[in-house]
Amino acid sequence: MTTRRELANAVRALAMDAVEKANSGHPGMPMGMADIAEVLWNDFLQHNPTNPKWFNRDRFVLSNGHGSMLQYALLHLTGYDLPMDQLKRFRQLHSKTAGHPEASETPGVETTTGPLGQGLANAVGFALAEKVLAAHFNRPGHEIVNHHTYVFLGDGCLMEGISHEVASLAGTWKLNKLVAVYDDNGISIDGEVHGWFTDKTPERFEAYGWNVIRGVDGHDATAIAAALKAATSQSEKPTLICAKTIIGFGAPHKQGKEESHGAALGKDEVAGARDALDWRYAPFEIPADIYAGWDHKQAGAERERAWHDAVAKYSSAHPELAAEFTRRLSGELPVDWAEKSQAFVDKLQADGPEIASRKASQMSIEAFAPLLPELIGGSADLAGSNLTKWKGSLDAGNGNSSDGKGNYVYYGVREFGMSAIANGLALHGGFIPYDATFLVFSDYARNAVRMSALIPAHAIHVYTHDSIGLGEDGPTHQAVEHLASLRYIPNNQVWRPCDAVESAMSWKLAIERKGNPACLVFSRQNLKHQPRSAQQVADIARGGYVLSDPQDTKFKAILIATGSEVGLATEAAQALAQQGVPVRVVSMPCTEVFDAQPLEYREGVLPGWCRARVAVEAATSDFWRKYVGLDGDVIGMTTFGASAPAPQLFEHFGFTVAHVVDAVKRVIG
Amino acid sequence: MTTRRELANAVRALAMDAVEKANSGHPGMPMGMADIAEVLWNDFLQHNPTNPKWFNRDRFVLSNGHGSMLQYALLHLTGYDLPMDQLKRFRQLHSKTAGHPEASETPGVETTTGPLGQGLANAVGFALAEKVLAAHFNRPGHEIVNHHTYVFLGDGCLMEGISHEVASLAGTWKLNKLVAVYDDNGISIDGEVHGWFTDKTPERFEAYGWNVIRGVDGHDATAIAAALKAATSQSEKPTLICAKTIIGFGAPHKQGKEESHGAALGKDEVAGARDALDWRYAPFEIPADIYAGWDHKQAGAERERAWHDAVAKYSSAHPELAAEFTRRLSGELPVDWAEKSQAFVDKLQADGPEIASRKASQMSIEAFAPLLPELIGGSADLAGSNLTKWKGSLDAGNGNSSDGKGNYVYYGVREFGMSAIANGLALHGGFIPYDATFLVFSDYARNAVRMSALIPAHAIHVYTHDSIGLGEDGPTHQAVEHLASLRYIPNNQVWRPCDAVESAMSWKLAIERKGNPACLVFSRQNLKHQPRSAQQVADIARGGYVLSDPQDTKFKAILIATGSEVGLATEAAQALAQQGVPVRVVSMPCTEVFDAQPLEYREGVLPGWCRARVAVEAATSDFWRKYVGLDGDVIGMTTFGASAPAPQLFEHFGFTVAHVVDAVKRVIG
Repeated sequence: MTTRRELANAVRALAMDAVEKANSGHPGMPMGMADIAEVLWNDFLQHNPTNPKWFNRDRFVLSNGHGSMLQYALLHLTGYDLPMDQLKRFRQLHSKTAGHPEASETPGVETTTGPLGQGLANAVGFALAEKVLAAHFNRPGHEIVNHHTYVFLGDGCLMEGISHEVASLAGTWKLNKLVAVYDDNGISIDGEVHGWFTDKTPERFEAYGWNVIRGVDGHDATAIAAALKAATSQSEKPTLICAKTIIGFGAPHKQGKEESHGAALGKDEVAGARDALDWRYAPFEIPADIYAGWDHKQAGAERERAWHDAVAKYSSAHPELAAEFTRRLSGELPVDWAEKSQAFVDKLQADGPEIASRKASQMSIEAFAPLLPELIGGSADLAGSNLTKWKGSLDAGNGNSSDGKGNYVYYGVREFGMSAIANGLALHGGFIPYDATFLVFSDYARNAVRMSALIPAHAIHVYTHDSIGLGEDGPTHQAVEHLASLRYIPNNQVWRPCDAVESAMSWKLAIERKGNPACLVFSRQNLKHQPRSAQQVADIARGGYVLSDPQDTKFKAILIATGSEVGLATEAAQALAQQGVPVRVVSMPCTEVFDAQPLEYREGVLPGWCRARVAVEAATSDFWRKYVGLDGDVIGMTTFGASAPAPQLFEHFGFTVAHVVDAVKRVIG
Repeated sequence: MTTRRELANAVRALAMDAVEKANSGHPGMPMGMADIAEVLWNDFLQHNPTNPKWFNRDRFVLSNGHGSMLQYALLHLTGYDLPMDQLKRFRQLHSKTAGHPEASETPGVETTTGPLGQGLANAVGFALAEKVLAAHFNRPGHEIVNHHTYVFLGDGCLMEGISHEVASLAGTWKLNKLVAVYDDNGISIDGEVHGWFTDKTPERFEAYGWNVIRGVDGHDATAIAAALKAATSQSEKPTLICAKTIIGFGAPHKQGKEESHGAALGKDEVAGARDALDWRYAPFEIPADIYAGWDHKQAGAERERAWHDAVAKYSSAHPELAAEFTRRLSGELPVDWAEKSQAFVDKLQADGPEIASRKASQMSIEAFAPLLPELIGGSADLAGSNLTKWKGSLDAGNGNSSDGKGNYVYYGVREFGMSAIANGLALHGGFIPYDATFLVFSDYARNAVRMSALIPAHAIHVYTHDSIGLGEDGPTHQAVEHLASLRYIPNNQVWRPCDAVESAMSWKLAIERKGNPACLVFSRQNLKHQPRSAQQVADIARGGYVLSDPQDTKFKAILIATGSEVGLATEAAQALAQQGVPVRVVSMPCTEVFDAQPLEYREGVLPGWCRARVAVEAATSDFWRKYVGLDGDVIGMTTFGASAPAPQLFEHFGFTVAHVVDAVKRVIG
């Protein structure tokens, strides 16, 4: 009969060995948290190793993601498709065992972690998703949505500001199925934390409305089990288990010290740890009885089968709900989506409203949300400015008042937490989240937006007040470099629509971008409607397209513009036409999508023979050199904005017909 | 005799009137906090309106900066150079009364606020600066550094994650001269905050080690004065005063509601408020007795005079210290700085060490810090990786152990708080702060880095592990888009040096960039030393320069590179030379500085006739189109990185001599 400690030591050994082989990685945390993980995974966690995507599984998040070998060892030992060969290739190119856990690489990894604090935020998103989905779909006697979310976190996660934002929300939302285990080992990279981390963490979390279980010995399986039992019995509050652990537990000279945190222990120390732990096996050798003690394949398969039975009963009792439940979990859009969403776009083209694109965004939400109950919105305390609410919006966090129909999250002034929670909502399944703030404050959420693209997660980030067009609030609130820097995030798509039609299309495409994020960037101020043929409407989806060509003559220059500057470009083109200078106008709402079009299409829009090109965008000029080259010109921003009414600012910073006309003439030469 | 309430009502009236005239702004907060501000500014704040830069003044920070009219009214009424005409031009182009307080525009504004939470962080920086400077310069009987830092903040600031990071540090550092006043009005933009903000804020701050004064009636001058008296008597802890206020106090229909927060009240409501407040004066009319009740010019001048007398006595007793004190406050570098720093650069050029540029950075700190006691360093818990400590580093936050010589801040894992605190340290005077993290985690600090450039503040942000060269930690930790996005922040300077010499020069220039920030970006891995003439060493300061030209023949192509890719470019140039293809190599450590050179210089480096250009940088490719145009090519990154040893990653992502050689041949055609 294997002991709990022996089971835990298998994790310790694999962590030591893999880090040693890679000569890179973080052995300290897995060795410190192995006993906790053993109890959680063997006695509590509901999961099915042979189907990591089983919907009703408990979610497990490693917010202190540098301890990735803990997770890989657990996945391997319990029976996921992560063979020993992969553990031996820890941190090597094309392995499934990257330096930090990556959801896209490794079966059983729920989210990509490493950037500290964000795993906790994702976990809050998972727990919120579970709560809202349960309220929507569960019926008396039918608990088809019912799982916990467990998250491990360390001192680093708790120091990060995002931990404040999301712990506060988890308390407010009473996410009682969220269980966080704090690895209180007293060590961070700079050494013993008491010099820079003196928070009374239990009191802090109690101030957020959490249930806090203090002073658990993280190496005492009985104490850990008792804490987890108490946590999972909570009906009201999220739980923080404060577990005292020894980092690098078992390493004779390095345990309890920073030395065990972020580097291979070294041959002698590993040998010493084997002795101390009484672990008599060779590197990467796990005896059969240890495997047997961890194997969760059969139990997991039975658990999933029982759930499928329950869903079958639910289907009999509530066939329509069950059909919708199945669709929601599949991530497929409703069958009428394509037609109805296109009809809305076409109607806008016909109607031609001259409104702010943030208003057009709201109209799009109003049109699309009734078709898509999976849309779950929110804003960082700017609902009335971002225009993210629609008439069906109901508070999702405080669900009691919304009768299971919660679909809107009041995030408060917490941009980073918001977007990282949105990533969790998206990864959970059953939701397409959108969140919102002013474009300039995408800065606050920056790394969560990056993570949307890297994980990837289908989160839609709405950014309004997108330029100096914001006006009087001034340079602290006016985006300049943000468009370019969001565009440069790999796998991100940034849409900056020029009118209501492009706005609606950008929403449509963002919703259809299954599994991947988009940023939708809207104006505060009204924008002109642009006439388009049906083909031009369709070509919006290509990211960039010819909006207008001169009549009866070949163009001599190309104006490229986005968003609020497309109207300016078309006016300038008209003025130039009157002066006998024929100009093409290209609307480029999404450069990433345009860049991905076939060369032939791109060449059709921006033919190589025409080097007389001027880009116009009220944002970083230099970004556009990619399209206008060294021979063209850019009317853009090279400084911060200023505080004044928007029309004066556009004039002041050179966004005028005269200025554009001059630039075009200059590049024609 | 004017009453306190009448004095406060002058602030309310000016706020209402200015917002009304601009038809834009935030009247609610100034009207809510006017009574608090009146007591603070009339009874506590030590300042001199006729010299806003008097060094020993108390610092006042409006972290809820949208209430800018509160600050403008206070500055105007107490006698700063902010005439009524400026208040009438609130939020207009070229006025001194921008939408949010801007330090560079308005006398008496200590820091630019509006991005929520950062004002509190700046204030923590001010208070830390005072504490460290006092420990260094004060002597028994000579308290020449002795002031408080007051900060107003709202619900929004407290929801933001950064409030957690910096409040935690302020508690750890025992910043007893920091007094924060929380405008607890229960309202944020989305309405009554109880739906999204249920923290027990007093308990939370007590968990950080703060002195918390609860439940102060923010409209009762006696209660306010008592709270401020208790706060300023603290010898151990920072103080949070929780003041219950009514937003829009006095507005008959809008007070206590979100409606008073962010828009003009409207003519009728303003008239109603005048009645309710019994304020019988026309818009922008302030009677003489009210002015007299506020005027602080004489008292302020006397206060400053007394301080100068104290400094004179100090100078007699401690002439050398006093001379250094004067120099530190002036912001001038030591007289031997230019010569000694240049000698260090020259010695590196002669020695030619092949080391990681992060190591070269540490050597530079080691060389420069003994010359510059104003350098105050720190890292977000990555000291051993960022290499930000030198042998003279002593803990500044926990000053008792460092005998007044504290010059290093253990920020913990708090990137955003760190950089915003650094902005406060820089603005206070007496310090040049540097902070550090991995380049990818500049994301977490992003808006504070932007604020360094906007305010502007002389903060030096050190970013190591600057690319896929970071290796095994993988894509979560590998910067890709960060170089370009930092470069696009207006008024920022980003240096990515290619060897030890450029590293030292970047440090030298960042230190000399008085009043303005820089980002210094360093490699994890070793970099080759590059040979240079004295002129080439000097030209590093021009941001980009010719590193090598072919011998005896004209170049046919130009390779442009930065950082770790300069070595690759020079190798490729040598390979090309052997194949008979003469190539110029340009090292471009700082594009912003290069772009600011005269056209003649730039043309000398990148002559227009040569369009066969290839840029090489292990970061976003598209950034370089600015220099290579449509005819050139870029060897860069278009995806996220991966987890593997660095040499394999450079190979995998195409950073090879063969690849560069091919690209050059292709662009030559």
